[in-house]
This record gives sequence, C-alpha cells and structure tokens, in this order.
Amino acid sequence: MRAINASIGFDRALWRQDIRGSLAHAAMLTHVGIITREDEAAIRRGLDAIAARIEAGEFPWDEGLEDIHMNIEARLTEAVGEAGKRLHTARSRNDQVALDLRLWVRDAIDGLSEQVRDAMRALAARAEEHAGTVMPGFTHLQPAQPVTLGHHLLAYVEMLGRDLGRLRDCRARLDENPLGAAALAGTGFPIDRHMTARALGFEGGPMRNSLDAVASRDFAAEFLFCCAMCATHLSRFAEEVVVWTNPYFGFVRLSDAFTTGSSIMPQKRNPDAAELVRGKTGRVTGALVGLLTVLKGLPLAYFKDMQEDKEGVFDAAASLALSLAAVAGMARDMRPDAARLEAAAGAGFATATDLADWLVRELRVPFRDAHHVTGRLVARAEAKGVDLAGLALNEMRAEEPRITEAVFGVLTVAASVASRTSFGGTAPENVRRMAAEWREKLA
Amino acid sequence: MRAINASIGFDRALWRQDIRGSLAHAAMLTHVGIITREDEAAIRRGLDAIAARIEAGEFPWDEGLEDIHMNIEARLTEAVGEAGKRLHTARSRNDQVALDLRLWVRDAIDGLSEQVRDAMRALAARAEEHAGTVMPGFTHLQPAQPVTLGHHLLAYVEMLGRDLGRLRDCRARLDENPLGAAALAGTGFPIDRHMTARALGFEGGPMRNSLDAVASRDFAAEFLFCCAMCATHLSRFAEEVVVWTNPYFGFVRLSDAFTTGSSIMPQKRNPDAAELVRGKTGRVTGALVGLLTVLKGLPLAYFKDMQEDKEGVFDAAASLALSLAAVAGMARDMRPDAARLEAAAGAGFATATDLADWLVRELRVPFRDAHHVTGRLVARAEAKGVDLAGLALNEMRAEEPRITEAVFGVLTVAASVASRTSFGGTAPENVRRMAAEWREKLA
Amino acid sequence: MRAINASIGFDRALWRQDIRGSLAHAAMLTHVGIITREDEAAIRRGLDAIAARIEAGEFPWDEGLEDIHMNIEARLTEAVGEAGKRLHTARSRNDQVALDLRLWVRDAIDGLSEQVRDAMRALAARAEEHAGTVMPGFTHLQPAQPVTLGHHLLAYVEMLGRDLGRLRDCRARLDENPLGAAALAGTGFPIDRHMTARALGFEGGPMRNSLDAVASRDFAAEFLFCCAMCATHLSRFAEEVVVWTNPYFGFVRLSDAFTTGSSIMPQKRNPDAAELVRGKTGRVTGALVGLLTVLKGLPLAYFKDMQEDKEGVFDAAASLALSLAAVAGMARDMRPDAARLEAAAGAGFATATDLADWLVRELRVPFRDAHHVTGRLVARAEAKGVDLAGLALNEMRAEEPRITEAVFGVLTVAASVASRTSFGGTAPENVRRMAAEWREKLA
Amino acid sequence: MRAINASIGFDRALWRQDIRGSLAHAAMLTHVGIITREDEAAIRRGLDAIAARIEAGEFPWDEGLEDIHMNIEARLTEAVGEAGKRLHTARSRNDQVALDLRLWVRDAIDGLSEQVRDAMRALAARAEEHAGTVMPGFTHLQPAQPVTLGHHLLAYVEMLGRDLGRLRDCRARLDENPLGAAALAGTGFPIDRHMTARALGFEGGPMRNSLDAVASRDFAAEFLFCCAMCATHLSRFAEEVVVWTNPYFGFVRLSDAFTTGSSIMPQKRNPDAAELVRGKTGRVTGALVGLLTVLKGLPLAYFKDMQEDKEGVFDAAASLALSLAAVAGMARDMRPDAARLEAAAGAGFATATDLADWLVRELRVPFRDAHHVTGRLVARAEAKGVDLAGLALNEMRAEEPRITEAVFGVLTVAASVASRTSFGGTAPENVRRMAAEWREKLA
Repeated sequence: MRAINASIGFDRALWRQDIRGSLAHAAMLTHVGIITREDEAAIRRGLDAIAARIEAGEFPWDEGLEDIHMNIEARLTEAVGEAGKRLHTARSRNDQVALDLRLWVRDAIDGLSEQVRDAMRALAARAEEHAGTVMPGFTHLQPAQPVTLGHHLLAYVEMLGRDLGRLRDCRARLDENPLGAAALAGTGFPIDRHMTARALGFEGGPMRNSLDAVASRDFAAEFLFCCAMCATHLSRFAEEVVVWTNPYFGFVRLSDAFTTGSSIMPQKRNPDAAELVRGKTGRVTGALVGLLTVLKGLPLAYFKDMQEDKEGVFDAAASLALSLAAVAGMARDMRPDAARLEAAAGAGFATATDLADWLVRELRVPFRDAHHVTGRLVARAEAKGVDLAGLALNEMRAEEPRITEAVFGVLTVAASVASRTSFGGTAPENVRRMAAEWREKLA
Repeated sequence: MRAINASIGFDRALWRQDIRGSLAHAAMLTHVGIITREDEAAIRRGLDAIAARIEAGEFPWDEGLEDIHMNIEARLTEAVGEAGKRLHTARSRNDQVALDLRLWVRDAIDGLSEQVRDAMRALAARAEEHAGTVMPGFTHLQPAQPVTLGHHLLAYVEMLGRDLGRLRDCRARLDENPLGAAALAGTGFPIDRHMTARALGFEGGPMRNSLDAVASRDFAAEFLFCCAMCATHLSRFAEEVVVWTNPYFGFVRLSDAFTTGSSIMPQKRNPDAAELVRGKTGRVTGALVGLLTVLKGLPLAYFKDMQEDKEGVFDAAASLALSLAAVAGMARDMRPDAARLEAAAGAGFATATDLADWLVRELRVPFRDAHHVTGRLVARAEAKGVDLAGLALNEMRAEEPRITEAVFGVLTVAASVASRTSFGGTAPENVRRMAAEWREKLA
Repeated sequence: MRAINASIGFDRALWRQDIRGSLAHAAMLTHVGIITREDEAAIRRGLDAIAARIEAGEFPWDEGLEDIHMNIEARLTEAVGEAGKRLHTARSRNDQVALDLRLWVRDAIDGLSEQVRDAMRALAARAEEHAGTVMPGFTHLQPAQPVTLGHHLLAYVEMLGRDLGRLRDCRARLDENPLGAAALAGTGFPIDRHMTARALGFEGGPMRNSLDAVASRDFAAEFLFCCAMCATHLSRFAEEVVVWTNPYFGFVRLSDAFTTGSSIMPQKRNPDAAELVRGKTGRVTGALVGLLTVLKGLPLAYFKDMQEDKEGVFDAAASLALSLAAVAGMARDMRPDAARLEAAAGAGFATATDLADWLVRELRVPFRDAHHVTGRLVARAEAKGVDLAGLALNEMRAEEPRITEAVFGVLTVAASVASRTSFGGTAPENVRRMAAEWREKLA
Repeated sequence: MRAINASIGFDRALWRQDIRGSLAHAAMLTHVGIITREDEAAIRRGLDAIAARIEAGEFPWDEGLEDIHMNIEARLTEAVGEAGKRLHTARSRNDQVALDLRLWVRDAIDGLSEQVRDAMRALAARAEEHAGTVMPGFTHLQPAQPVTLGHHLLAYVEMLGRDLGRLRDCRARLDENPLGAAALAGTGFPIDRHMTARALGFEGGPMRNSLDAVASRDFAAEFLFCCAMCATHLSRFAEEVVVWTNPYFGFVRLSDAFTTGSSIMPQKRNPDAAELVRGKTGRVTGALVGLLTVLKGLPLAYFKDMQEDKEGVFDAAASLALSLAAVAGMARDMRPDAARLEAAAGAGFATATDLADWLVRELRVPFRDAHHVTGRLVARAEAKGVDLAGLALNEMRAEEPRITEAVFGVLTVAASVASRTSFGGTAPENVRRMAAEWREKLA
C-alpha cells in the first residue's frame, strides 16, 4: 500500500512551487489576521531554510510522510514549532496540490515557449540565409515543383508559431488560482484569494468554483496536448533530417554534434538526434492519452486517481525540452549542399506546371486543356531524352501552334521559384521578407 | 486500389465548403482578370445548380471521380463547358482540400460552441434554482463536507466554459486562408489571397507559407483535442448522473426521455443517455490519437496519408454534438430529491471540519491541534451514537475547556454551507451570484 | 546531444539480462572456437565481478559511455584486458539490446503472471467463501437480478484468467533468440545461435531473420497491450471497490491497510488503493500508445527511435505489479456486509424475471406475453406498496387466471439465485464448484 | 435521445451473426423441450425469409426498433406469430449482443488471417525470386551492410507471421459461447449451453461465468490490438515503398495500379496506396484506444457504454483488410531495379565490417582492435578516393602487416552477403531456403 500510495518519489519535483504557494498563503493569512506576523516570520524563515536544504540536496525526504506537502510541513513544524501547525489553516492538500501543479505547468510553459522561440529563431535564420537556395518541393516524397530551402524551413517556423500560440492560450487559461478552494467547498475563514492570486501572479484571479478548483485537470491535459502537437511537428522535421542526410538525398550534412558514426564506416553519419526527436513523440502522445484515460468518468471532487496527473506532465515537458534543443541545434548545425539541391530541383520536368500556367496565362488556354498540352510536350521531351527546355520551338508548336519563344523564360528552376510571388509563395523575395519578419518578431 | 483510394464516400460531407471555396476563388480570378466575368457567371450558375441537386439528394456521385473536388468539377464542366475547365486555374487539390476541411471545422466549432453554451445555460439555470439545495460534497466518493447542488453543477459550467475557450482559441488559430498555396509552392498567377480570405471570412488573412498551408493539419488535431477534452468533461458529468440515479444514492430522477426501463421492473430507470455520453468519450479520444498517429513523422508537403484526417473529425464532431445535446437535456430534465440530498448532507459528522475551523478561528488553536481535538470529539459522539450537535457542552469541554455554547452554531449543514463564503466557496449566496453571472454572460 | 542520446539513466535496468546474454555469447564463442577457453574464463570472472558490484550498488556508471552495453564492456576490458575486447565478436549492440529487452520482458511476464495468479487465488478464495452470499446484480448500475457475491468475484477471475493467457501467448511468441543477428545481416563467423538459444532458455530457438531480429519490437508492444488490458480489468474491479465502499452502498468494508482516513471524520475510509489502481490504467495504456507511435512508419532495420521502447515497458510492468498487489490485497482484505447485501438483493421487485420465467415455464405463456403479465403484476404490487410476494393469489389471478400457489416459491431471492443453475449461472452450487475448480487449477 | 440511443444504423452489420445465433438458440430450446418442434420450424422459416430480404437489400429497417435484435424479432413475430414471441425465452439482449459481436469478430479474424497469409505468400514469393538480389541494408537510413532484397522482404513475412499468430491466439481465446448467460445471472430454464456452443462452433464451450459473458469485451480489445499491431507492421513496409520509389533511391518501381500520376509530370509516380496503408494505422490504433477508454472503470455487468464497442471494430477490420490487400498487391507488383540496388549495395565502404571480421577470424585480432585497424584502412581508401578493394596489399600491410592477399576475397558485395550464413543471416542460400519453407507452410 505504501508503495502504491506514496508520491514523494516524484512529486518532490514540485518543491519550489509548494514553498512559493505556502509563502503566499502565509502572507495572506497574516494580512487577514488569521495568523500573526510572528508566525509568518517563523514560517518564512523555516521555508527558506528548507528550500536551501533541498537545493543543496540535503533535505531528508521521508517516504513515510507520503508526499511533498507533508514532507515540507512536517520539517517546518519540527523547525519552527506551532507556527508550522498554523500554516495549513484554511487550505487543504487538495487545493495545495492543484496549486503546485498549476504553477509547475506555468513555469514549464514559460521555459518551453522560450525554447520554441529559439528553435524558430534558428530555423528562420537559416531560412533567411537560404531564401534563394532552390531545392525540390515534394509531394508523396516525389519531386513536384522547385521551392527554396528557406521556404521549406519557414513552413516549420509557422507550425512552431502555432505551437507557441497554443502554449500561450493554455497558459492564459490555467492562470487562475485554485488556492483557497480548501478541501472542496471553500472555507469560512475570511481569506483573501485575490491577494494570493496576485502574489502568485495569477492574471485570471482566483478560480470561481471550489469544486472545480480541486477536481479539474484539463489544464494539464491541454498542456500535454500542446506538447504532443509540438512533438509531432518536430517529428516531421526530424523525418526530413533523416531523409535529407540519407546519402541518396545528400541534401544536408550534420556535424558530429548531432550524429553518431561508426569507427569503420566514416561516411556513416547516423542522425541519432533526429531519430530520438522523432521517437520521443511516442511518449508525449502516450502521456496525453494517459491523463485523458485517468480523467474519463471521474466524478467530483478529489480522487487519488489524480495523483497520476504528474509524472506524465513532468516527462512530457522534459522530453519536449530535449527535442526542441535538438531541433534548434540541428537547424543551426546543418550544412545544405546547394549544388546538389539545385541539381535535384531541376530534374524530372520540374517546371511542367510553369509551362502549363504559361499556356493559361499567355494563351488563355483553359486550365484543364493546358494540362493536356503540357502532358504531350513532356512526353515528347521524354521520348527525346531532354528536359522541357531541350525541345525546339517548332516541336512545341506541333502541340500548340501559338507557343512563342517567350515560353523558354519560364522553364528554368530559377524562373519557376522567382515567379511564385503569390502571398505565401516560394519566391525568394517572399521568403526573405517573411524570414526577416520572423527575425524581428522573435528578437 | 480504388477501394482504398477513393474518398468520395466520406468527403462529400465537404460539399458546401467545396462550393463556397470555388465561388470565392472564381470571384477572385475574375477580379484579377484571370477569367472573364462571363466565365464567372457560368461557374456560379453551374455551382448553384449542383448545390441544389446535392441538397435535394439527386447529385450523381461517381466513385470513379474519386473525391468531392473532381465530382463537382466534372459535373460543372459538363454543365457549363469551358468555364468549368478554367475554375481550377491557380489552385490545386492540395490547397482546395485544406480549405474545405478548415471551413468545415470552423463551421463545426460554431455549431458545437453554441451547443456548449446551451449545456452551460441548462446547468447554470439548474444551479441558480438549487443554489441553496444542500447535498454531500464528496472526495473519494465518500461524503466529506456539505455543498450545495448549485455549486456542484456550476463546477461543470466552469469546465465547459474552458472547453468553450479552447474551441474559441482553436477557431481563431485556424482562421487563416490556405487557398492560393496551390500544389505546394504558391503560384505565378497574380491572385489575391487577401480577397478570398475576406470572402471566406478568414480573420487571419491568407496563410503565410504555401508548404505549411497544404501540409499542416494541426488545426484538425487541436479541434479533436478540444472535442476529446470536452467529451471527457461530459463523461465526468455522465458518471455523476449514473451514480446519482442509482437507487442507493437516489439523488436525482430522470424522466423517460433520458432513461430506458424494463417492462417488468418499473423501478429500473437505466440512464442510457448518460452511459452513452460516457462511452462516446472513447471514440473521440481515439480520433485524436488516430490523427496524431497519421501526422507523426510525415515530411512536407502533401501525402495521401492526410486523406485520413477527415473521418475522425466528422465522427468526433457528430459524437460530441450528440453528447452535448444529451447533457443539456439531462440537466434540464433531472429532478433532484432535495429531502434525500439534505439528509445525506448531514450524515457522518459532515460538519467536523466546521468544528475544527471554529476551534482555530475562535480559540486560536493551531490548525493541526484543532484537528486532533475534533477527532476526539467525533470519537465521543460516535461512541455515544449521536451526531456532533448531540454532544453536551460539558462533554465538549472535557476535550477543550474553552469551547462555548456558540460552537453549536456551526454544527448544522445549513450553517456549514452558509459559512463558506470565501470566493468560489459553496455558500448559497456565492452560488446564486455566480449562477446569475453565468446566466447573463450566456444570454 | 548527450542528454538526449544517453540511455544509461534507464537502460541499466537491463544489467542482469545484459550479463546473462554476454555469458551465453562467450560460452558459445568458445565452443565454436572463436575465442579461447582462457578468454571465456576471464570474461566470466570479469562479468561476475561486475554483477556483484552492480548488485551492491557500487558500480561506477558513466554517462559518457552512453548505454548499459558499453558501460559493462568498458569495465570488463579494464578488468580483464584483451579478452574483454573479444567478447563483442560476432554480435552488435543491435542484437544485444534486442536480446536484453526480450529477456527482461520475459522475466517481467513471469513475475506478473505469478501476481495475476495470486490475485485470482485471492478472488477465487473469497468467491468460494461467498458462493451463497446474495447481492444485487446490476445492469446500468441499477439492481437487475439477484446474484451471489461469489459469482461476481469469479467474473473477475475469468477476466484475469484471460489476461494470464495473453501473457502466456505473448511469452511464447517472444521466446526466440535475436542474438547472432549482429548489426542486421547476420555474420560470417561460424556461430551457433541454437546453442545460445538453449543457454538462454529460448524455446523458439534462434530468430529466423536477422533484419527482423534487430528491427522488431512487436513483442514489447504486445506485452504493453497485455498490461493495458489487465490494468483495464483491474480498473473495473477498482471501480466496484470504490462504489461498494461508498456508504450508501455499504457493500464491503476495507481495513486501514487499503484506505486512508481523516483524523476528524472517522467514518471516512477513502479507498485510495482502489483509486490508484483505477488511475494507473492511464499510464499503462499511454505506454502502449507511445510504443505504437514510435514504431509507426519506421523502415528496417535499426533506428535510434527504438531506444524509446524501454521506459514505457519498465513503467508499465512496475505499475501493473503494484496494481495487482493492491487488488489481491483488497480482495483478501474486504469484509462484505452480508445482511446489507441481502436486503439490497431483495429490493425493487428483483425477482420479477423469475415470475416471468415461471409463467413461461409452467403456463407456457410466450416469453413476450409473460413479460406483459409480469409488468402488470408488478404495477399492482407497487400500487399496493408491497413486494411481489406480498400480492395475494387472487390478485395475481386477476391478471393471469392460471397462476397457482406454486408461484410464490420463485419469488424469494434465495429461490431466484438457487434456480439459476444453467451452466455459468449464479446458483450457489455452480459458484462453489467453479471456485473450487479455480482453487485447484491455481494451486 | 433516439439519435444517441439507436444503434441500428451500425449494428445491422451483425445480421448474419444474429440470425445464426437465433437459429442455434431455437434448435436448443426445442431439444430441451422449451419450445415445440412446430415453433422451431416457424422460427427457422421466418428467419430464413428475413435473411433473404436483408441479403436482397429489401429489409425494412426501423430506427424506432432501436437495434438489430429488435428489428429482426419484431419482423419475425409479424411473420410467424406466437413462435416469434417464444424465441427470446432464456436469453436476453445482453448475451445476444455479446454473442453476435463475438461471432462477427471470429469471422473477421478468419477473413483477415487469410489476407495476412496472402500478403505473406506474396512477399515470400518475391523473396524467393530475389534471394540473391543484393541491396544496401540500412541502419538509421544509412547504408550499413549489404543484404539481399529477399532477406529484407522475409523480415516482413516474419512480422506478419507473428501477427497471424496473434490473431490465432485471439480467436482461440474468444472462441467461447456467451449465449445462455441471459441478462447477467444465467437462467432457471433447463437450457443446454454446450449444445449451442457446438452448433455455433465454439471450441471453448460455454463461458463459465454469466456476468463475465455479458460484461467483458477484452476479446474485442485484443482483436483491435492485433489489428493495430499488424497495421503498424504494414506502415513500416509502406514507408519502405514510399522511400524505395523515391527517385533518388529508385530501388523499386510500382505500376499504375498502385500509384497515381500527374498528367503533366509523367515521371511522378505517387505511391498513394502505400501512403494510405501508412495513414490507416492511425484509425486502427485510435479504435484500440477508443475501446480501452470505454472499458476503463466500468463495473459489472452491462452498461450502454458497451454499445460503443462495435463501430471501432468494424472500421478497424475494414481498414486492415484494405491495407493487407494493398500490401499484397504492391508486393506482387513492384519491380526492383537490380542494377541500381547492386550499385548502391557496394557504395560507401559497405564491406568494412567484413574486413574487420576477417582480421578477427584470420589474424585473431581482438574485435575492438580489428575495428580500429579497419577504421584506419577505410581512412586511407577514402583519402585515396577508392573503395577498400582499391587499396594495394602493401597499403593494407602498413596498418596491419599480417594481412594477406586473401583479404580481397571478402571485400566484394557478393562475398559479403554470401558469407553471412549464420542462422537467419542474409546469405542467398539461407534466404532461398527460408523463402521455400514459407512457401510450403503457406501453401
């Protein structure tokens, strides 16, 4: 029973938040006259000492005291006597643990958000640098149209930008104070929950319903979803890295800092970091499923099931932090092979769409018909073993007599990407401007 | 191959969105001079006719045409000729399907949000009505302290309020226009993506990166999480209904509209609706896991895997809609048994906490010590077979000599709930005020 | 990179398996003449010393050496020199880690299977004891028909029996030797994989395909499913305990060993152990989802993603072990309140089905018609405020003239359960026989 | 309420099973004398007619009758009168639906197992054909050692073989008869559950506990896991196909039957079928999570939540069936480019491991030291711009003087794969033997 019941093995991670909450609570109790100024001073002194011991790794954690709250309160009472026994007035472990985890998640969001921004900065910087570096744009992992590497990298900046927005929304929503909900019903003590809310930086003030305050964990589940979604985005980038560093692609090269090698196969540069980023998606998604499973069908208010809300949150935050660091690092580290990218960008009738669009634009051929003409021209080129630009004008005119010399102007990779100036399109000028915008926004 | 590839069996659900998008696209193409006013008129006429046929259930869906987009375009060209072949200029199925699903999810959010509000209204109205109806507050499904039924119901209003906020945030984040991203790289046609964004009501304007526009589905995953979280909240309420309608609880009674009976056991009122609400959580969470699994490790830009983004979204929205309707209905329907709730609220030394708090407040006994005194008094009462109020003053004084006659004022259920006036506490005046606030906010 | 890459923080849990595998490998290398008997002796001596140091908690784990394999090999070479450098001949970390985890899971299955059996023994023993203790059988948490407590407990024995079967099947399927697959392609050394298979107790012999051997983790996913399914079964039992110990049910009482109390509310017996069992389902299901997510879309052969296969497996096994111990303990500990169970079993026209069946059996009334007659009789009884047995014979005959005095023989709870002698039915004799069978089978 | 409650929209899929079960039940009721031979004949006649109408798509499904069971029973009674009303004697919808779903899953397993075998046959046949076709073996998507294509394909045969084993185990475990459990407690009618078990082909006989029979759905969850695991394996193969058909790899080519193209880019062969196989993993895993979520924390016996067990099962079975067909088809369809595979197999010092092993084997250099020597030799070759075989003997001897001319014998791709004759290794003779074994086993 002790083995299954004790949580001190993992909830000690909440120690900073627990002490921060107790200090705010004590200050409020003093302010409204429930405890004396002397009591508060003793409590403050005691908690400061405990914090110092924990920080130093010298705190005598006791599994018999079950959880972080009792460990700290017991030591406090040991150290400062009666004042320690008064600290728990007008609160309960139910609101206390809800507070601690909420503060922890808020802190985690702040840390992770900064890491997301850092990864975005890294990607945006490389995007600016490679705004004009052409590469094949893929659908179905088949080259479809030329794009620029910068454009490709900025796509991930956009995704991460939304991940950041989700973390921000999650933070704003959880930024409410559960402290003072007591066991579940509130309290008859004349406490001031707005005061503790201010002290603890809760923009949303105190929670409006005490049962909800102790029973709800949607803030943690939402946090886990934010992490899972971001991890999934990172898994997509990681997959690109794995593919791009494959020798047949050879699009980018990573340094030893992000690869492991083989002592006997020097050309083997295993993108371990990327693979781990990709793999870690699993545990983060698993943690989300875990908490949703815990909460399913649980009536109000507190149940011990909720003790299962913590480890998944801790692990998901740590995993995502590692993955973000790895992605930022790889983004900064990777060296694209521009020559190879350009060669690949031009292969395989990559500008066929440009030809079709030219027929629509210049000759007002209906779109579907333009596609048929283009298909036939490509077939001619293929038969002849040349690229589209390798067809003679008269060969082109055999399929569509109105084609002019001007068509050759759209058949190069450079012309193709340069032409795609529609908002959000891959034209280097677009990419440069967008990357610069991100750079400023993220500064 | 056709069986696995064709999506028309389910993506026809997008028909309204597909046509809305095509109309906006055609208007823009006209505006910028890519197609003529006559073409646009023909397209509009053709699409209107198609919409009418679909609405009437007379549209000849053709599996050979694979998906909703080709079905509509093929019929359009059949009906209006060349203009139909021009409609697809400067777009691709990749941005088209991204647009359609985005519009669909936005519509679904609007519908579901109104349903969430309706469920909140129902709960808040019952909460206002029962602001003073006492009942046991539970922890561990064991009665812990008296609360009011109104307070309990408002806890769910708070949860649903956050669910609403999540849907709102999700809507705001997805409210961007992917149309014009074309296949993946943008286009060289002089399109105006801001114009289509305005026409389609996208507050966020056009998406800033064409690869992201066609490759990202986090908007759908976020929507699924919003649904899963809300469904999980509803599952908690449903569990309460199942428990409360159990005859040993007998807290509330549901009418035949939400129960099924047995022809031979008239007292059996199976809360089927509540059970289905609870059960449907599974499929919604499953749909979320499904999409996260699909997206994991997928490089840019489009892959056919993404066709798997739709059915889960459709099903989750439909399931949640059913569940919200059932919860709103049950909230309106349920008849609490006030007498039974009150009796239950007073059983089992339910006001022991009030006594302990009185000792702290009036006699300044340290909290932990007050608990020990209360424990001894409860033991006395238990031994004597009475409730705490059944102890004589001198019996109380045997444990703590400073106790006065005034203590009896806190030992009733009514006094207990009335005393919990801390912000968010269960005091009827709090509940009444909060319910009224919700009523106004949701009006 | 080191932070994300190093696995020694968790894979040290594999140390016993790693050493066991190395000993078998060394013996085989010696047998086929790849290393000398002296080398093997040195290796054995070195590994034994390392095992002793790990056991004693004195092994100097080095994060710089990344994983369990390199930590042990490095120390071995330090201790025994050149022989240590020969140990890794004809194997690779890829087959080594596949071996270690496979052995670990097999050991975990053995431990968990014994725990499942113990929980089954506990439940079956209580079932035998309470073969004749009547209680309400529920559908929809509404009393439906009387059953016996023994019968109810045996339902869980059946579920756990299938869980045991799943573990057994999983064990049999994974009981194959990956060692000797080397990096991915097998090896040119004349190794004897059958010999290591025998030495390591692999009934299935060596795995038949080296790529599969290093790339597959379905054995771990299947193990996680077995754990998740069993945890889900335990969550159902845990829910029963939470409900049954609720005071309005009052069906069973748990001792302090499995509940926590409140110092001021002595009647409060929070079934914390049951709640934790129920809650732990989440993390086990989460681990399963995690691994399936990791494996999705991963080509052959080895990727670093697979490093993510371990922690979920370790945690799921530990969580399930705790839950099984708690369930076995609660089964042994709980004291049913037979009087209360019996009273509840008889309430609410619980024998209406028996009456309907009597009409079918004795009067050959068609089943559907018998239900209608019974419905009317119950309505009469309800109107009169009595139970079915409280109706007079002539009142019964008013609805169905052929009813005889004999009908009263089926209207008691005792008669009801005694009558249900169909195979698998709740009749006490059935339950007694089945419980005895389980007792013997599990002895 | 009707919308959420009615299941006839999807449970009609169970019609065959429902009728099969009713026929067996009626025959048994007749045998034990509960209904007459005439009743049985009428029932049989009525059900046969109903089956014919359903088959012909002419059955008048009525949502007002809620589910498949009532739809069929109501029509039966309409058609054959009183006998129809007797059919439901000694059973309940609870055991009836448990029976129907169990039969459905058993049928689905039979169908899927045959499909798995077919996919295995397809893969094994190609493996036999390409037992000697060399290709690079990958770790980390980096070429590591040469293997044969046949060996690679057989790895998937092994995985699918275990999937088949899981389906078989699942089938054997669920092959028990729930019919006769009645509502939850069994029945007092003298039914013969062994007889219906035999009639319905349940090898395991009747289920031993009536509560378990109506309350358990682990058979469905296990089936879903089997599907999810198999779908995950198929997703891995699908990923290979996507990668292999990428033009930079160019390892295999798929015909139009499994790809979609672009009218303007003829070289674009989008592996849509493979992508859909990969994507469908999501919904199958989602269905598994869905059912585990439904079951979590559900007490005995029947709850309406369980109605949520069906759609996920139906959808997962259908999705897996499509995926298996696609995989079998792609395996048969794909044309490997042997020249390209061979060239790739030899690139990048692919036989470095062979050299290191030669040093160990022939010169008895310790494994770790051999790796260092090899590393230095590779560095020399790299500096010289040649492959290992391009080094002169004296250059080799500069690193290790004992190297002889014989070393060149192990430096070719052909020698490398031929040498890996360890059991399960990639040597063509191994692959040929193993493929032949599978061919026979699967015949």
